[in-house]
Amino acid sequence: MNEKFQTPRGTRDFLPEEMILREKVFDTVEKVFKRYGYDPLKTPAFENFELFSTKEAIGEGEQDKFYMFKDKSDRELCLRFDQTVPFARVVASNPQLPKPFKRFEISRVWRYEEVKRGRYREFWQCDVDIAGSKDMSADVEIIDCTMTTIEELGFTDCYIRVNNRKLLSGTIQFVGIPKTKVQDAFRSIDKLDKIGMEGVEKELESRGIKGKQKEKLLKIIGIKGDPQEILEEMKKLIGENEGILELQELLKNLDYIKRKVILDLSLVRGLDYYTSTIFEVMSEDKKIGSIAGGGRYDKMIATFSGKEEIPAVGVALGIERIIDLLKEREKNKVKTYTKVFVVNVNDEVKEDCLKIAKKLRQAEINIQTDIMGRDIKRQFEYANSLGIPYTLIVGPKEVKTGDFKLKNMSTGEEIELTLEEIIKKLT
Amino acid sequence: MNEKFQTPRGTRDFLPEEMILREKVFDTVEKVFKRYGYDPLKTPAFENFELFSTKEAIGEGEQDKFYMFKDKSDRELCLRFDQTVPFARVVASNPQLPKPFKRFEISRVWRYEEVKRGRYREFWQCDVDIAGSKDMSADVEIIDCTMTTIEELGFTDCYIRVNNRKLLSGTIQFVGIPKTKVQDAFRSIDKLDKIGMEGVEKELESRGIKGKQKEKLLKIIGIKGDPQEILEEMKKLIGENEGILELQELLKNLDYIKRKVILDLSLVRGLDYYTSTIFEVMSEDKKIGSIAGGGRYDKMIATFSGKEEIPAVGVALGIERIIDLLKEREKNKVKTYTKVFVVNVNDEVKEDCLKIAKKLRQAEINIQTDIMGRDIKRQFEYANSLGIPYTLIVGPKEVKTGDFKLKNMSTGEEIELTLEEIIKKLT
Repeated sequence: MNEKFQTPRGTRDFLPEEMILREKVFDTVEKVFKRYGYDPLKTPAFENFELFSTKEAIGEGEQDKFYMFKDKSDRELCLRFDQTVPFARVVASNPQLPKPFKRFEISRVWRYEEVKRGRYREFWQCDVDIAGSKDMSADVEIIDCTMTTIEELGFTDCYIRVNNRKLLSGTIQFVGIPKTKVQDAFRSIDKLDKIGMEGVEKELESRGIKGKQKEKLLKIIGIKGDPQEILEEMKKLIGENEGILELQELLKNLDYIKRKVILDLSLVRGLDYYTSTIFEVMSEDKKIGSIAGGGRYDKMIATFSGKEEIPAVGVALGIERIIDLLKEREKNKVKTYTKVFVVNVNDEVKEDCLKIAKKLRQAEINIQTDIMGRDIKRQFEYANSLGIPYTLIVGPKEVKTGDFKLKNMSTGEEIELTLEEIIKKLT
Repeated sequence: MNEKFQTPRGTRDFLPEEMILREKVFDTVEKVFKRYGYDPLKTPAFENFELFSTKEAIGEGEQDKFYMFKDKSDRELCLRFDQTVPFARVVASNPQLPKPFKRFEISRVWRYEEVKRGRYREFWQCDVDIAGSKDMSADVEIIDCTMTTIEELGFTDCYIRVNNRKLLSGTIQFVGIPKTKVQDAFRSIDKLDKIGMEGVEKELESRGIKGKQKEKLLKIIGIKGDPQEILEEMKKLIGENEGILELQELLKNLDYIKRKVILDLSLVRGLDYYTSTIFEVMSEDKKIGSIAGGGRYDKMIATFSGKEEIPAVGVALGIERIIDLLKEREKNKVKTYTKVFVVNVNDEVKEDCLKIAKKLRQAEINIQTDIMGRDIKRQFEYANSLGIPYTLIVGPKEVKTGDFKLKNMSTGEEIELTLEEIIKKLT
């Protein structure tokens, strides 16, 4: 087929078989989000370019990934890069919303990135965010909700990797790196998972962070052990730090609800807008790695409103990665929501088939009938090809007696029932 | 607030209160679509520009409404203008799909149009389509499914307005208008609802359709009466015509299932791609007008595949219009899915609140807890402002005895129950 009639690079069609699996995943996610008291929000697929490019939002670092365009009035627009920035805009422009404002959003985002296995240019994200609470119990709730969601999706070996931007920048300054280089240090350390300690060392040097400063920094971010003990140690080392107090409070509460946490002083999480708590959910399975991540961004909303700060914290699930993993695990692929195919024996009963279908549909059973004028054999073949679980055979004899054969398509078993009995059996 | 931090013109944010209503509508629509055996499909938010602009798809007539842009590799892309054209592309590029291929899609489309009351540049459509059946029973099913959907949404005074493109172009040629002017005649007649018969007359004249030809045409498209009688009359008048046979079959079947139909020989339905059946669902309430429309487009898929014709028929619900109407009717506005707010009496019971919330959430009850460190009064105020139906009061005494006060927030009634009893009551 002509290339111009294919999906644009990095985008996909989801055929019914895949959609049914995806809907199951999204339904589970949404159900858990609601259980934690989050309500739905939808924002436009595109925003004014300035929204995302504002320094306190996505900023310049990622602008090469924006899908930008101009509309016919020459407005500069940008396809939604994430769901956090539009959320912050909504909070900024709706001061009437009761606080905490807790919302979920499950929708598409677009990033012009290199396309490779598991990475797309159009993909879905599942976000929960809270605006209006500076209390660590908000961070606890976000993390707890994320873990419950991931568990309900069948990932039972996950743990939380946590850090705090205030502690991280405190540490960077403690070792003598000037404030102007804090972002440089962040960017270098952020690459740890990809390039290893030696790589980070070179990266730091290339950004002018050398000698004792570099060595001290690398030593501190490499500390492993019991989280509360690490924090006590850090307190002695770098002194009073808000990040330490926040982490202590966070860890205590996560312990109440028995969440497995690792304090990782090297965790940065790319985006510039985080101001405090940052976290990732990791699978014990090293091949899987991180499947969700988020944190606190207390400055963004005020940037948009021009008014007082409204603190916020949230998470985005890497749902495409999760779906890819679930696809590998899934054994029974479902191709249709249809439960019964009504087999039309001959033209004589066409009207009856329509009426029977109507009755079954009124009982909320998902029904297909023959709309191709096919013979019985080909109707059965079609039902089979879609994996429809039951067929109901309608011929002149059945219409007369009111007894219909219901065939279980996987076992081959046939039973004779009235329509009422069929409805009772299938609902 | 700065304009750059607002939604782009013609797009909207949907806050939770509106989303909850919209989700109820979409859920109903989806449930009915599934009952008729339609399965979900998703296509990208943007397509290659050539897909929509191809003559047999949207063509040139509507190109001024396209949201076009170039990606960083200079590909010409276009935000999805409708859901029918991408559906046809999917069928063309997936010959392995069993036929009939029946899918629904509920998603956004974008049109750069003049923004006015009830008209947006980003809006949702709900489509069902069938590929692979040339049989009129497919058209019947699409129309029946549309009517059932609209009824389930609470519109009980609707009827179907139907016509057939083959009959219409047969008529146009019968009155002596040359084949090259058929599209011109279509475009003129299509404006009837907006500009009236006199307007159409002028429009036809301006396109060079005059005198006897024009008069005959206007007379025929104005015929009213019993559908089957009109068709008999037309048969005598213009002779053998496939459109007449198709309409007779369609009307007979719609009569089997007691659907109210008007044959309107002046119905055109704008888009160029229709080839046969065309229909609209109308409310008896003249102010409401058309709330769904569709038809048969037997040529489009072959254009994309370059292979044999695959006939297709479908409908798009004007769901934004439907939602606007339902919003006016809705009395009880729901602002949250949360069922219970757990009131934290003091800091002493913070850990207990987390544990109680966990237990209730495990029982699939939607719960919020205090994440603001608020006093009791302000916790109640918050629960009230969101319209959360119940509060559960947790203090040291309650934790000790295991009996908790559950307060119905609308009646004020309080009852004392154990957690197990509360779960039983609320699930």
